[in-house]
Parts: sequence; structure tokens; C-alpha cells
Amino acid sequence: MTRPPHTQPADDALPPAKHHAHPPAIILVKPQLGQNIGMVARAMLNCGVTDLRIVAPRDGWPQETAYSTAAGADVVLDNATIHETTADAVKGLTYVAASTARMRGMTKPVVSPAGAAAEIIARNTGDVTTCGLLFGAERTGLENEDIVLSDAILNIPLNPHFTSLNIAQAVLLVCYQWHSYSGAMPDWRLETNEGDIAPRDKINYLVDRLEEELVRANFFKNPDMQPSVMQNLRNTFIRMNLTDQEARTMHGVISALIERR
Amino acid sequence: MTRPPHTQPADDALPPAKHHAHPPAIILVKPQLGQNIGMVARAMLNCGVTDLRIVAPRDGWPQETAYSTAAGADVVLDNATIHETTADAVKGLTYVAASTARMRGMTKPVVSPAGAAAEIIARNTGDVTTCGLLFGAERTGLENEDIVLSDAILNIPLNPHFTSLNIAQAVLLVCYQWHSYSGAMPDWRLETNEGDIAPRDKINYLVDRLEEELVRANFFKNPDMQPSVMQNLRNTFIRMNLTDQEARTMHGVISALIERR
Repeated sequence: MTRPPHTQPADDALPPAKHHAHPPAIILVKPQLGQNIGMVARAMLNCGVTDLRIVAPRDGWPQETAYSTAAGADVVLDNATIHETTADAVKGLTYVAASTARMRGMTKPVVSPAGAAAEIIARNTGDVTTCGLLFGAERTGLENEDIVLSDAILNIPLNPHFTSLNIAQAVLLVCYQWHSYSGAMPDWRLETNEGDIAPRDKINYLVDRLEEELVRANFFKNPDMQPSVMQNLRNTFIRMNLTDQEARTMHGVISALIERR
Repeated sequence: MTRPPHTQPADDALPPAKHHAHPPAIILVKPQLGQNIGMVARAMLNCGVTDLRIVAPRDGWPQETAYSTAAGADVVLDNATIHETTADAVKGLTYVAASTARMRGMTKPVVSPAGAAAEIIARNTGDVTTCGLLFGAERTGLENEDIVLSDAILNIPLNPHFTSLNIAQAVLLVCYQWHSYSGAMPDWRLETNEGDIAPRDKINYLVDRLEEELVRANFFKNPDMQPSVMQNLRNTFIRMNLTDQEARTMHGVISALIERR
């Protein structure tokens, strides 16, 4: 599940390239507060998810309070579609996961955000939206009649002693998981604004030169220790991942210390 | 990176058991708004992360507005420690990742929330906190003098055209990733409140009985089609993952339809 730190994945372990991944629809069933709809839109657009479907919003549509909390994600709100029923909102979809913390006496698969994201990445590969995520009203959540229309229950694993999660935070977690699976960035890379990482021979040369200077300075009181001390020093320098420029700086540091001596 | 849907991971693919995973510290450097500190505390506790360290909060400490937005996560705020400098706040830590969207002309590893979570899971296994995550002031972010104290830059991959993310949302995404890696729940499981999944022999018996009744009802106009039609039907019933109770209901449905005939 987790990739070991400090390793780049093999090409075939990478998630599918971004242009094959089509985002899911986010379906809000009977949302109560316009400000929550706005924060949902913001979280969606953060993750490149734009298909918002709203079933029977309590306070009608459009709502000014939604725009005020969307932090600029107006495009999502402008293109939101309004539906009378959940059945109408899921038309055309072939996979629907319904977010709920409570199990409902129904036999259904239960997926985490990662599980839902993997399903959506695997299924929603074409140009049309075939996957959707259902979220219920803030206070009451989804009704069983909504959940039965879904393929799976989406359960966000949280601290069992503190599960209070705003609807926009729930949408953010699931959309982010989809977005990160869709090839957003590797889990680890080395940023080198200054230039290239120094090749191993330059590091070896640096350590060889350091050893030479240390011998001249009688650093090795006991010559038997020299190989193991130098192995440790070489290991340290290689772990530093020096750039070419940083390696040159290290040469300068050695030269300066010699001069001073 | 993603696990194929509908497969349970092998035991050795599971993340480490929860009790081995020690949560990271969350370090807020010069936060401006108390309400954001409160929302950070809420997001932390959602994910079982409780060690909050605050460097030079603009409006002092404690702050009433923090408690008002913490939605009950008071325990995190009560135990927060206040520090004059970032260097003081990272004392005792051996791995620190600094959240920033901008690269800083420093050669540093860049990790995603998943990459940071994997590092923390791998490193922070004891009883004391050795890993921390740095977040800067809302408006200005972290200073270079904070970032240089870190092992890695934490970069949250978002829609490049819309990266506006509240500090509490950033904390939530990273803490959630750590929490989900710490063994919260499998990505996929089948919830069966009603009882056990019917074993394959019961499903086969159901399909065999259905076939018998279909032959009696002259369903197969062309007998050559019978094997392939039955193969499809058997596949459909097996894919349903029926519980024992649901399989009995199906038998009842068949019986009722026969009666009616």
C-alpha cells in the first residue's frame, strides 16, 4: 500500500496518466447550507473535479452564500445541475458510492476513499462521467432509499473517538485521493533548483581528496581505523545527495580549512 | 500504487498495525487567525493526531476563537505547546517536512502527503514523537529559515489552476494520509449485516434449480444456447455476492413465479 520512502516507482507501478482519468460526479442530496455547497465546490476544483449535481437543495438554487465560500470556484457552481430525485441525479452512472458513517443493514461493499478512488480510476476512463459519489444532508446524512441506489458504501476511516467531519472536508478527502491516484505527482522526488545532482565519481573524488588531506593532517592516529572511518565518511557524503555546485562548495571548504592550517 | 478493486490485500501488504504507528507533531509557524488554529485541531483529532506546537502565534495564546471552531477538539488545544522559534519547536525531532507550494532554490526532497505519511510510518515507530510537519502563516507561508530546518518539502499536488487551500484542509489531507496508512481500515470489504455470504455450493444449487425451472418453462427455444445462457446467468448470480438470507429469498422468488404460472 505504501511505497518505501526514497525510491522512485518503476514505470509500470505509476498510476494511469492523467488524461485517461475522468473525474467522478459529486452528488449532494438535500444539502441545507449554501456555504457548505460553496466549500464543496472549492474542494472539488482543488482536485480537478467539476461535475456537481445537487438534489433538492433546501434553500433553492442558485444561492449567494455558496458563491461567497467557494473562494473563486465559481465555474463549478455555475455548471451545477439541479435534480428533483437522487435517481435522476445518478442517471448515466454505472458506479456510485454513498458516503455514510453508519452501516444500514444492507449487504454492500464498503470502500475507503482510497478504495473508491481505485474503483473510479479503473472504471471512469472514457470521456463521459460514469462514476459518482453521494453525500447526504449535513444533519441527517443519506436516506436508505439513496444508499440502495449505490454500488458501495463510502466510509472515511477516522479517529473513532472524534469523527466530526464537515461535508466539504469529506468531499476534499475523497476527491484528493482520486486526484492523487490520477497521476498528480510522485510521492518522492528531489528538487534541485541549482542544477544536477553530482555524479558518483565526483563525490568519490571529493571523499578521496578529503582522505588525502586527513592523512596529511594526521587525523588517523590509529591507521587501522582509517578504512572504517573513511567508509563512514563516504557513506555520509553519498547520503547528502550533493549537487555539482554543492560539491564544488565542499571542495572550497576543504581548501579553506587547509589554508587556515 | 492503487490496489485493484475487489481484492483483499495479502497480510504482508497491509500497513503496519495501528499501535506501532506514532503520530507526527503538527507545527504551526506564526499562525494569524485563532479560528484556523481551531480548525487545524479538529482536523488533527479526526485523524488521531494530537501533538500541536505553535510558534509565535500573532494574537497570543490561548485564544477563544480557536476553541469555537475546534468542534470539540479541545484536548488538542489544551495540550498545545507554545514556542518562540521554529528551532525550539522541532527539538527532539529527527524528520521534519515543511509544507509549501513554492520551491525555494534549495536542494531538498519533495514529498507528497502520501510520501510524507510513508516516511512517518517508517520512522516514527516508538513511543515518542520524532516526526513533525511544519505549516506557515496563512498569508505568507513558511520563511526560508524555517524550511532549511526541514528534511523535505511537503507539496500537496492539486489542480494547478486552483490551488487555494485553507491551512486546516492542508493539515487534514496530510494527517488523513498518515491515519489511513496507520491501518485504519482496508480499502475494500463487504459489509453483511444480515449474516454470512452464501458459500459457492449454495449459489450453484440456486442456479441449477433455476435452470431446471427454465427448461420446464421452455425458456430455451434453441437448446444449443442453453450452455452459454446458463454460463452468463451463473456468472451474474456469483457476482451478486448473495448472503444466505438473500439466496433463500431468491429461491422464494423462483417458487412464487412458478406458482403464478
